[in-house]
Amino acid sequence: MTIFQLRQQWLQGEMIKRGWSGFLVTHHVDIYYYCGSMQTGYLFIPAEGEALYLVRRSLIRAEEEASADVEALGSWKTLAERLRARCAAAGDAPLRIATELDVLPVQLFGKLQAALPGAAWEDGSLLVREQRMIKSPDEVAAIREAARVVDAALEAVIPHIREGIAEFELMALIEHQLRLRGHQGLMRMRAYNSELITGMVATGAAAAVPTYFDGPAGGTGLHPSSPQSSGRALLVRGEPILVDIGCMVDGYLIDQTRTLVIGDLDPELQRAYDVAEQVLRATEAKLQPGMIAEHLYLLALDQVQEAGLSAHFMGYGADQVKFLGHGIGLEIDELPVLAKGFKYPLAPGMVIAIEPKFTFPGRGVVGVEDTYLITDTGWEKLTISREGLIRV
Amino acid sequence: MTIFQLRQQWLQGEMIKRGWSGFLVTHHVDIYYYCGSMQTGYLFIPAEGEALYLVRRSLIRAEEEASADVEALGSWKTLAERLRARCAAAGDAPLRIATELDVLPVQLFGKLQAALPGAAWEDGSLLVREQRMIKSPDEVAAIREAARVVDAALEAVIPHIREGIAEFELMALIEHQLRLRGHQGLMRMRAYNSELITGMVATGAAAAVPTYFDGPAGGTGLHPSSPQSSGRALLVRGEPILVDIGCMVDGYLIDQTRTLVIGDLDPELQRAYDVAEQVLRATEAKLQPGMIAEHLYLLALDQVQEAGLSAHFMGYGADQVKFLGHGIGLEIDELPVLAKGFKYPLAPGMVIAIEPKFTFPGRGVVGVEDTYLITDTGWEKLTISREGLIRV
Repeated sequence: MTIFQLRQQWLQGEMIKRGWSGFLVTHHVDIYYYCGSMQTGYLFIPAEGEALYLVRRSLIRAEEEASADVEALGSWKTLAERLRARCAAAGDAPLRIATELDVLPVQLFGKLQAALPGAAWEDGSLLVREQRMIKSPDEVAAIREAARVVDAALEAVIPHIREGIAEFELMALIEHQLRLRGHQGLMRMRAYNSELITGMVATGAAAAVPTYFDGPAGGTGLHPSSPQSSGRALLVRGEPILVDIGCMVDGYLIDQTRTLVIGDLDPELQRAYDVAEQVLRATEAKLQPGMIAEHLYLLALDQVQEAGLSAHFMGYGADQVKFLGHGIGLEIDELPVLAKGFKYPLAPGMVIAIEPKFTFPGRGVVGVEDTYLITDTGWEKLTISREGLIRV
Repeated sequence: MTIFQLRQQWLQGEMIKRGWSGFLVTHHVDIYYYCGSMQTGYLFIPAEGEALYLVRRSLIRAEEEASADVEALGSWKTLAERLRARCAAAGDAPLRIATELDVLPVQLFGKLQAALPGAAWEDGSLLVREQRMIKSPDEVAAIREAARVVDAALEAVIPHIREGIAEFELMALIEHQLRLRGHQGLMRMRAYNSELITGMVATGAAAAVPTYFDGPAGGTGLHPSSPQSSGRALLVRGEPILVDIGCMVDGYLIDQTRTLVIGDLDPELQRAYDVAEQVLRATEAKLQPGMIAEHLYLLALDQVQEAGLSAHFMGYGADQVKFLGHGIGLEIDELPVLAKGFKYPLAPGMVIAIEPKFTFPGRGVVGVEDTYLITDTGWEKLTISREGLIRV
């Protein structure tokens, strides 16, 4: 049995508990998660029995890749009959079909509803996201390899950092090194309208310019049509250079931040950087199975308040974001989120990026981010880059 | 009046014809199109009067960028009242609100429906896509600049092409040159689950491996989790190297393909390449206002059949795609599509990528792609790279 079939089996157990007839997986990332292939089509996982992958194209590749029965999608008119045939346990009762309503567009959902008359629809997106929270060893191995790639790219680029090069030139160097080492060139996010351009690489005041992006770092971007991350600001001695980057290897993402500086930071920014490291160390001390996700955020808020830096934590003013970290895997924005309202107890197999940062408008962003695997007894850091402020 | 306000005004005219009260624009690309800003939030364009941009973050940037009244999004409880206040013409009647149901996720739509009780919803996505089909001079200028960047990057990379380098290394070189010249690092697509990693750069048999991607070129990709474009195949003398690339400048995309070869192509592939050029020349001869989009595709099919290459056109076998070209602008997959069923008459201001290609399983893909502006009297080619097969 492949890892993909084991995942289907777990989902089937949950469907039986809920009385669902099956799960129609529509999102490419979820389709990959459950069958190991990402061709265009729909993966139907019945509550019992074999999964059926209905593929528009490429059927040839789906047959080579997928841990599921593969058939040509063909006419939508046969969809109801073909899914019903997989749901023997439902008898003649109306089917209860789950799908991912957090990402599925309304138009396509309407088409599916029309193709499956009488079916009752359930929102299965949270269940999928919760299952994906716990990584298997193969997933951790891919994330570990992505961490190695990010570190190697960062080290390859550091010797080229000097005053006068532009943010976007530094980003271009980093991306080139990432791609040469196997980065697949995408950074997937699940949330509507969310995009990531390799990460947030920005310097000084430009890094502190707020963005729409749901993260603590900012950046002007090159244009209002991609208003985040690297722009045309030049690297200057003494300004913090925030290098918050990731990459994708075998479908899995890593996320890591280091603060770099040509020369030295001024004392106030250096102190804020030190507090970021202290917050990360204190978070590590609490990082173990059973700890509630939101507590880590609340503990960080307390520390930051004691340090007198609350106004600068995770953005500034109205543009502060309200979290300390996030799950990561096939997508950047996975569960659990280390934020108020997230009551998940940490569990072995979770992979979480933790990123305390401080924003100083007009001056810059300082902070650090590492990605951690929760283990039976505590944690293991998956990111491997050298610790501490990096002086160039 | 800004270009963004002119676009709102055109949309308002269409809404009045349809009896819609307003358009709630939710998709980041459409929000940018109508107000010049891409912050997180919703842009409400009433049928009459000023547009209202309700922003979660960054409010500061939205205020700097947007051609609309900007307010903090705040509580959803006030949404109904705030939109109603913009729809004086509707009086006390239920609001009819359009939005983009082709991209809006079901979950978020449900939240909007709950926040606006009693409103009737209309699918405005086709109207937006049709408006965006006709480009203004500023949009054409951005696409022209993107075309310049793609050409400069291609020329910078050609001297480095040699036997033994891998597809992904060639792609890394191209991306680096694109980014140094201002490529924003994203290639936006509108269709659900669609992604593009800069384009399709692949060689020989690997280029002919079919993909899920709705395009004529293929590619193994680096892994089943991103099964398209460049993989690890090495460049070999005499094999066609397909360089189908784009980039984004000021939010606008370009799309261009050249076939390269180290040495010479074998006669059969050379002939197919020549036919691709002939199809493009014949298409150009028909490219003018009033020509129906699908006719160009049907004419190409006739030519290809005469050349005895139907089985190889735009993919092979079950993996053939059924179009000759596509509109392009803020997204890669815009209207009009040059395909059966698309009855749009060409009109001045349309920008269309036309890409005749032939796939030979086990051997490679050959073809060419240029992007054209439809003018009052015919067309202008926006891509500027040298014509013809490029021998390295």
